[in-house]
Amino acid sequence: MPFTHTLTARFYEIDRAGIVFFGRFYEWAHECFEELLRALFGHPEAMFGELGFGMPLVHSEADYKMPVRFGDRLSVSATVSRISERSATFTYVFSGTDDGIHRATVTLVHAFVDLASFRGIPVPQRFRDAIAQAGLEPSAA
Amino acid sequence: MPFTHTLTARFYEIDRAGIVFFGRFYEWAHECFEELLRALFGHPEAMFGELGFGMPLVHSEADYKMPVRFGDRLSVSATVSRISERSATFTYVFSGTDDGIHRATVTLVHAFVDLASFRGIPVPQRFRDAIAQAGLEPSAA
Amino acid sequence: MPFTHTLTARFYEIDRAGIVFFGRFYEWAHECFEELLRALFGHPEAMFGELGFGMPLVHSEADYKMPVRFGDRLSVSATVSRISERSATFTYVFSGTDDGIHRATVTLVHAFVDLASFRGIPVPQRFRDAIAQAGLEPSAA
Amino acid sequence: MPFTHTLTARFYEIDRAGIVFFGRFYEWAHECFEELLRALFGHPEAMFGELGFGMPLVHSEADYKMPVRFGDRLSVSATVSRISERSATFTYVFSGTDDGIHRATVTLVHAFVDLASFRGIPVPQRFRDAIAQAGLEPSAA
Repeated sequence: MPFTHTLTARFYEIDRAGIVFFGRFYEWAHECFEELLRALFGHPEAMFGELGFGMPLVHSEADYKMPVRFGDRLSVSATVSRISERSATFTYVFSGTDDGIHRATVTLVHAFVDLASFRGIPVPQRFRDAIAQAGLEPSAA
Repeated sequence: MPFTHTLTARFYEIDRAGIVFFGRFYEWAHECFEELLRALFGHPEAMFGELGFGMPLVHSEADYKMPVRFGDRLSVSATVSRISERSATFTYVFSGTDDGIHRATVTLVHAFVDLASFRGIPVPQRFRDAIAQAGLEPSAA
Repeated sequence: MPFTHTLTARFYEIDRAGIVFFGRFYEWAHECFEELLRALFGHPEAMFGELGFGMPLVHSEADYKMPVRFGDRLSVSATVSRISERSATFTYVFSGTDDGIHRATVTLVHAFVDLASFRGIPVPQRFRDAIAQAGLEPSAA
Repeated sequence: MPFTHTLTARFYEIDRAGIVFFGRFYEWAHECFEELLRALFGHPEAMFGELGFGMPLVHSEADYKMPVRFGDRLSVSATVSRISERSATFTYVFSGTDDGIHRATVTLVHAFVDLASFRGIPVPQRFRDAIAQAGLEPSAA
């Protein structure tokens, strides 16, 4: 069961070609990620406090299917598609809220770091537990 | 009675000093403006279609009272503070949704242009009527 | 003698109306400010190290004279227009590099804070000296 | 021989974790693309005029090797890594201008559209010729 979030394409997110700039989907995916963190851990700032780990990106990618235009309402569905020893992969599917048409898919691969040292660490148990508790675990093949 | 909108300070809106970059308040004020246009005229794209007029900025300003931090929820109250022959001034007051504390005030002065020619025009009657109907008219002294 | 900087209007800085979004001028003014800090103090990160003071905005404003379009090259002239006990005001004038036509003027009013406490402090002598040495002092009336 | 461009990480491009937000690399890659278009065709706005074709993104991806911090100067090397019947792939390698250390690589896959209809078209001969003339053709295996 994915985590869902909704957003609206803003006037200043349109580019010279009259459609939403392709880079904005990464900001939107991260916005959905922030709401997911809030649902898991309370205020997203908690990560920089008691949790003590950060999740820097090591890879990001996006496929664009249909342009998004000014004022369009979008629904984002987030799933955790893979958790390895040292990274977690989230997939964000963007669809029109009104028409249901698939617009783009964004994939973000996060490493985990100790925020004090900025050194890489294994996926924290606390993260694994929260994902499991929210029913967001990657499905086994 | 002001028009209200809520938003959340995002991870990528924070600057090197660890607070929301001062320029983001202008994007947020415009976001509130877009929702106001939607309430007045339907889809904000309507402006570029049947309405036929644009509202470019001739002046903008902001006063900053308290920093906004990552994850803060904000409430924006929009009022139309002045309508002259050829311009309309909107005021946006930002407060914390949880604490009610005033963070910043943004003022935007729009001119009106014919979208075909990009030439200045007087404030369209259709705009005046919509503002009046929404109870957003500037109060007389 | 103003400090000067040049920049180019980018594809993703255009808004739905086909011109540069009005909020981008604040980012551009700050970009010029960062280059000015580099000229005064070396790497702008120095402010967060040995200098130990920050310069948060208390007020910003802009007047827009002519739209800027995709690919336009702009020249920015920065002057320090006022230094009071506890704040400094910078003025940024944007003109077309090719046509010399005035596009916009941005004014930024900075307070000064101790970066450890984020509390307000008087304008540091080191800042006054650097501005004087660079010949950027506000002219007496 | 790659096309090169330089840029500086700005105050407002830093995120809550104190490093450049991962999405900014896409804006920077496109900024380099715009300068490349200018080198090939003159003003990048030409694309929307006489050239008559657009190059919307169908896929984008990035690998992040090392964080970029406020004020860092970066060099971007752009190459055309593949041209197929209907798309062109550009690769952008980001390194520190001072230290030469590899920070990130961005890959952008563009389709081609007729700007009047926004319908897909084969890679225009004029684009192929310009790439060849600039010595930017993908090398045969």
